[in-house]
Amino acid sequence: MVASYAEELSQRFDDGRGPSDATLPEIPFLHRLLARKTVRAYRDVMPPDSLLDLICAAALSASAKSDFQQASIVRVVDADKRARIGELFAAMPWIGSAPAFFVFLGDARRLEAIGALRQKPVANGTLEGFFNATVDAALALQTFILAAEAVGLGCCPISVIRNRVDEVAALLALPDKVFPVAGVCVGYPAGSGYVSLRLPRTVTLHRDTYDDSRLAEAISDYDQRRNARHAIPKTQHRLIEAYGEAEFYGWSEDKARQAARPEGAAFPRYLRAHGFTFD
Amino acid sequence: MVASYAEELSQRFDDGRGPSDATLPEIPFLHRLLARKTVRAYRDVMPPDSLLDLICAAALSASAKSDFQQASIVRVVDADKRARIGELFAAMPWIGSAPAFFVFLGDARRLEAIGALRQKPVANGTLEGFFNATVDAALALQTFILAAEAVGLGCCPISVIRNRVDEVAALLALPDKVFPVAGVCVGYPAGSGYVSLRLPRTVTLHRDTYDDSRLAEAISDYDQRRNARHAIPKTQHRLIEAYGEAEFYGWSEDKARQAARPEGAAFPRYLRAHGFTFD
Repeated sequence: MVASYAEELSQRFDDGRGPSDATLPEIPFLHRLLARKTVRAYRDVMPPDSLLDLICAAALSASAKSDFQQASIVRVVDADKRARIGELFAAMPWIGSAPAFFVFLGDARRLEAIGALRQKPVANGTLEGFFNATVDAALALQTFILAAEAVGLGCCPISVIRNRVDEVAALLALPDKVFPVAGVCVGYPAGSGYVSLRLPRTVTLHRDTYDDSRLAEAISDYDQRRNARHAIPKTQHRLIEAYGEAEFYGWSEDKARQAARPEGAAFPRYLRAHGFTFD
Repeated sequence: MVASYAEELSQRFDDGRGPSDATLPEIPFLHRLLARKTVRAYRDVMPPDSLLDLICAAALSASAKSDFQQASIVRVVDADKRARIGELFAAMPWIGSAPAFFVFLGDARRLEAIGALRQKPVANGTLEGFFNATVDAALALQTFILAAEAVGLGCCPISVIRNRVDEVAALLALPDKVFPVAGVCVGYPAGSGYVSLRLPRTVTLHRDTYDDSRLAEAISDYDQRRNARHAIPKTQHRLIEAYGEAEFYGWSEDKARQAARPEGAAFPRYLRAHGFTFD
């Protein structure tokens, strides 16, 4: 087989850039990474516990800042808890109905507890403590997702759980300084889904210095290419009442509208009430 | 071949837990994940540009919160910049000497720029904006590392670059609201390294509710098992002048001492001076 990633790169980026070098090694994992998809519809089959345990073990093999190991994972098994979390997000029924559901936690509490055990004063509610715990949880989450995909499962990360962090934290009995970074739905895919077109690498990949001087043109071009593949249906256009109908409703119009009305107000309030000073 | 992950699980966790279920699928990627290692010593061979580009493309296939795509990557190629970054961290010579070096950036600037292009006011210097950009960069970083490992490269994430964020940001010409999450050294491994023993899963993996009621015992046991494998050499004991010699210097003693004297003071100051309000 001649090594070529041209097809996957075109599906993922369509930005006219390689590499499709014939000397590249043929690595199935790289082909899979480039073609990976978020999965929100699952077959009604529960993955075996031992398989989910193995995927969690793989997730906990992710890198961890300074070996502090500030990620924790909660698997939500209890049917009542699953239902109550699902009810919080009626617009995303897969949260309640996916075969398995996990919550990845930034855990800034454990390092403080270790400090107390060893009689060293550790103040981990700082911005640094919050940041490091967040990153560790994200590293574990991404490893979890890729491990799950490797065994034929599909995942959907659920960052929206932070919008109802008070309720979610109460259901999971999270103590101070332990916070959800994201949930993740897991199951065997039903249906095929599609590869999400990413921003061109002229925008995201820089050489020696950061340069976004040609952003406007690149975004406009991206909007057009993305729209040609998967136009955003009119029923999903946001904030018509505030901003009216857009002449052209592309990715950037959608993301600008979404970001102009952030939904995450509960999260910083929760964090400040539960041990984080962000000094 | 009978599927079994028992050996890798024992190397990684040594916590007496499975799964080593014979029905588990035999997935080489999972074996590799469980056995992965940080690599700080590299052969003097530059990985081909096309291969590094492919790995970056894979990294940019990571999940991204709300499809906002707030990760950016800088590859540092310029020899003078590499040397100057290396000089900032003399205690970690691999930063300057690794064949390739990348910096993963949280990019909260782009979404604001997109808001401006579409005439929607986006304020992305909030805690939510910072958090989402951080997570996106971490997701891309972990995907980069796993992609690199899949082609036989080894990586070392470099979070310490944030301790000299002012100098690093100046060298990379980072604008406001774009910040380094971590660097990463890349090259073909020289030498074999070792698998880092992780905390037992009784500590990191929870079912339905968070429970750390048996942390002290678990940490103490972990310290002993870890010490039996790789005792921390006396020359690496921290803060003897402040805390004296420990009767037993295990992982928790080391991490408590490290965390009691956090080195990341420059980072929050930098962020607040460069566009983040953390509202």
